[in-house]
Amino acid sequence: MRQAEHIELAIKPKPAQLSIHDWIYSEIRAAVLSGRLKPDIRLPTTRDLALQYRVSRGSVVTAYEQLIAEGYLCSYTGKGTFVTKTLPHNLSVRPAVATPTSPSVHGALSGRGKVFLQSPFYHDRGATAAIPFKPNQPDFEHFPLKIWNQIGSKRANAIRVRDMGDMDPGGYLPLRTSIADHLRFSQRIHCLPRQVAIVGSAQQALDLCTRLLLDEGDKVWMEDPGYPGANMVFANNGAHVVPVPIDAAGIRVDVALQTAPNAKMAYITAAHQCPIGVTLSLERRLELLAWANQGQATIIEDDYDSEFRFDGIPLAPIKSLDSTGRVIYMGTFSKLLYPGIRLAYVVLPDWLTDPFVSAMSLTCRYLGLHTQKVLSEFIADGHYARHLRRMKMIYQERAQAFETACKAQLGESFYINPITTGLDACVLLPSGMDDALVSDQLKLGGVQARPLSFYGIATKPANGLVMGFSSFTPEAIWEGMARVREILEI
Amino acid sequence: MRQAEHIELAIKPKPAQLSIHDWIYSEIRAAVLSGRLKPDIRLPTTRDLALQYRVSRGSVVTAYEQLIAEGYLCSYTGKGTFVTKTLPHNLSVRPAVATPTSPSVHGALSGRGKVFLQSPFYHDRGATAAIPFKPNQPDFEHFPLKIWNQIGSKRANAIRVRDMGDMDPGGYLPLRTSIADHLRFSQRIHCLPRQVAIVGSAQQALDLCTRLLLDEGDKVWMEDPGYPGANMVFANNGAHVVPVPIDAAGIRVDVALQTAPNAKMAYITAAHQCPIGVTLSLERRLELLAWANQGQATIIEDDYDSEFRFDGIPLAPIKSLDSTGRVIYMGTFSKLLYPGIRLAYVVLPDWLTDPFVSAMSLTCRYLGLHTQKVLSEFIADGHYARHLRRMKMIYQERAQAFETACKAQLGESFYINPITTGLDACVLLPSGMDDALVSDQLKLGGVQARPLSFYGIATKPANGLVMGFSSFTPEAIWEGMARVREILEI
Repeated sequence: MRQAEHIELAIKPKPAQLSIHDWIYSEIRAAVLSGRLKPDIRLPTTRDLALQYRVSRGSVVTAYEQLIAEGYLCSYTGKGTFVTKTLPHNLSVRPAVATPTSPSVHGALSGRGKVFLQSPFYHDRGATAAIPFKPNQPDFEHFPLKIWNQIGSKRANAIRVRDMGDMDPGGYLPLRTSIADHLRFSQRIHCLPRQVAIVGSAQQALDLCTRLLLDEGDKVWMEDPGYPGANMVFANNGAHVVPVPIDAAGIRVDVALQTAPNAKMAYITAAHQCPIGVTLSLERRLELLAWANQGQATIIEDDYDSEFRFDGIPLAPIKSLDSTGRVIYMGTFSKLLYPGIRLAYVVLPDWLTDPFVSAMSLTCRYLGLHTQKVLSEFIADGHYARHLRRMKMIYQERAQAFETACKAQLGESFYINPITTGLDACVLLPSGMDDALVSDQLKLGGVQARPLSFYGIATKPANGLVMGFSSFTPEAIWEGMARVREILEI
Repeated sequence: MRQAEHIELAIKPKPAQLSIHDWIYSEIRAAVLSGRLKPDIRLPTTRDLALQYRVSRGSVVTAYEQLIAEGYLCSYTGKGTFVTKTLPHNLSVRPAVATPTSPSVHGALSGRGKVFLQSPFYHDRGATAAIPFKPNQPDFEHFPLKIWNQIGSKRANAIRVRDMGDMDPGGYLPLRTSIADHLRFSQRIHCLPRQVAIVGSAQQALDLCTRLLLDEGDKVWMEDPGYPGANMVFANNGAHVVPVPIDAAGIRVDVALQTAPNAKMAYITAAHQCPIGVTLSLERRLELLAWANQGQATIIEDDYDSEFRFDGIPLAPIKSLDSTGRVIYMGTFSKLLYPGIRLAYVVLPDWLTDPFVSAMSLTCRYLGLHTQKVLSEFIADGHYARHLRRMKMIYQERAQAFETACKAQLGESFYINPITTGLDACVLLPSGMDDALVSDQLKLGGVQARPLSFYGIATKPANGLVMGFSSFTPEAIWEGMARVREILEI
């Protein structure tokens, strides 16, 4: 064995934030990893090192012990401490302290991973102040936050040991029961609580259903224009998206049947087509069901806002017609209550219930209990139904204000699709106007409006804007619309 | 148009739970859907129907209006109400009221979907009372639940309008900052808060990393025996799992380099191999890093319990040696605090941070804010570090009790791997004993012990049991061990 006493350990001055033993530890580790201290070299004794650097011997002992425990050094009684013999000679590893060098992202990601970079949600970071006419935004001011916080505070204070263990990956049973009860009356959907699974978002439900039901290359019908969140989940999972045009009665089932009769799935926004706003006709609903029954295909019915149907009772969903278990029905509380609640649900055909819950457990385990409990109590105590009723009236008033203001300020060359449901309006632009350019122009002037082209899949849709009316008072709507007129110099 | 007045509507008696208009609605809808009422048939007037069934005319009007809105009926002024002409003639659709008939699950699921059925977590439904020696179970009794509930109650009562909107899919920034600070001191990992992403579970982090980094058929090194949760996520995502044997120094990197040098990923439990319990040697850590650097591969370092290292400071993770951004480090609060907390984190190389957050937003959106806030305050106020220190001492005492009791009660033919870390012990059985059979036998006698074969991937591991000591007092451990002796008739 070589002697190392005469080797100058070349320890750099101690940085202020490190303790003495951390400093000694880091310096020796760096010397070993950089190859300055070669394997089998003997280190100074702890006493010598302590004297040399005028530190307490105890700190040096602690540092040596840590380095021995981690395998950098070995100690042999009576012989001293050595750099571990078995370490590779050319380590070329530097301890990470600075920002690591970055390989090219596109080089490092998988093929499917690259699709993830296109998430439409990614840039929605943080709650921004609502500027007109931000779409997909429920009103926050009328939410009974005081009641919500009272329930929340009570529930948070009541966590017991029995709540600390693992829970059912399908969700909190009382919440699933409340949802099943609500759906029976409000949507004519008859299901058992176990068929209702709680998820964190419609995205999560879509992702799991796609993976459970589609293999690479399997075809899925998608409304075009349609919801980009669904389109990207399908694409990321290797499904073959078949864009199907829509008309005033919703998705053109006849076209879909010609193009891809053997598709395995259809993604449908029946109550309120996203983004155009039309309602799927009964005829087409029945055609969809007949197709699904014949080919063992699945219909995903994404019902994101039909509770806010302004002309009477919500239309019965496709799910309410489904006697053979071909329809998966999805709803989300992020639009019915508020986005930060991060709770959604999916009503599963009986045969899919166990596989879905199993998939949930493997990719997520389950969702935290707290908000599920609060929401469950909020529904059971009637606050939920009361809030929906109230908001429906408020949104209806705002929808009317939007229509009137739009016509008055922008004139008849801007066409509003009839607003029957939900939070947003779809406004078609006069010919010659490009929606992406108009959206950018409005943004510079402090107005938000999403171009219809954002929703286009295979075909560029008509030039139009999706504009939210739901989180703005009639006054704010009129002011916002006046601002639009100014910006567009109409 | 045919006249339908003489057609007997054959309405079944009203079920008690339905309102009159719901009953009329349901009966007519069922008659249309079953084909008993053909397209274009004229219905009785609302007055006639009301008289016939002795109900209020208003209820019949409501039912007709709903059926018209949904497209079942059409009304022509002065002519009456008809079944919609355009409905397909042979509907063969029955409204769903009963449990739907079930297609075979295996026929309906995708290839990858079938893998989801094998989740090891799925049957962990509901918190079961801790019976000895349930593994992976932190102690609940010493958790500072009172402090936790105080913070939780305060936070739940302080939700404001600004908390209701969408938030950063990477997680709550103060929590990410607290974790980055903690890791710097406890694990020598230097990272920026933005490199820490909050997830709901290690499973979610694994799933997203796999999808971001591996395509169908890409190879991943997996310790054998190893963690089934990871193995199944890889398999479900179409990765090619390469099982690599382990020995007393951890994964046999030399074997892996011979078998599959071109793998794209390695899943490593370096601090405390799951399930055997050995620590990966420094030499192998450096070999892994050299391999990853050369081939642009990624190491997933799943550090699920190294905070509970009984002999001194936790060993510095591979991540702390990673200067080129090849290591993804994962930790979970479900073992450090309690499973129901459903929060975990992942430390990402800089280049992977944006893609990961984008993938999170597309497949989950983001996690609810409440528990993130509570945990963030719990860490910032020092409760977290205090709890970990305390539990380390308690777990160490229990580990010692387990070792002593095991040796005393079961004798030397049962071999305990040295317990250095964590919540569980690995006990090897005397030759001739089959672990799956022994586990079943113990279960019947009220003792839980997971067979090592549960963790085997390509090779059946040595016969052994994974037994948790962490959630049982030394007395309960001695009693449990006596029970094991009785059951096994030793």
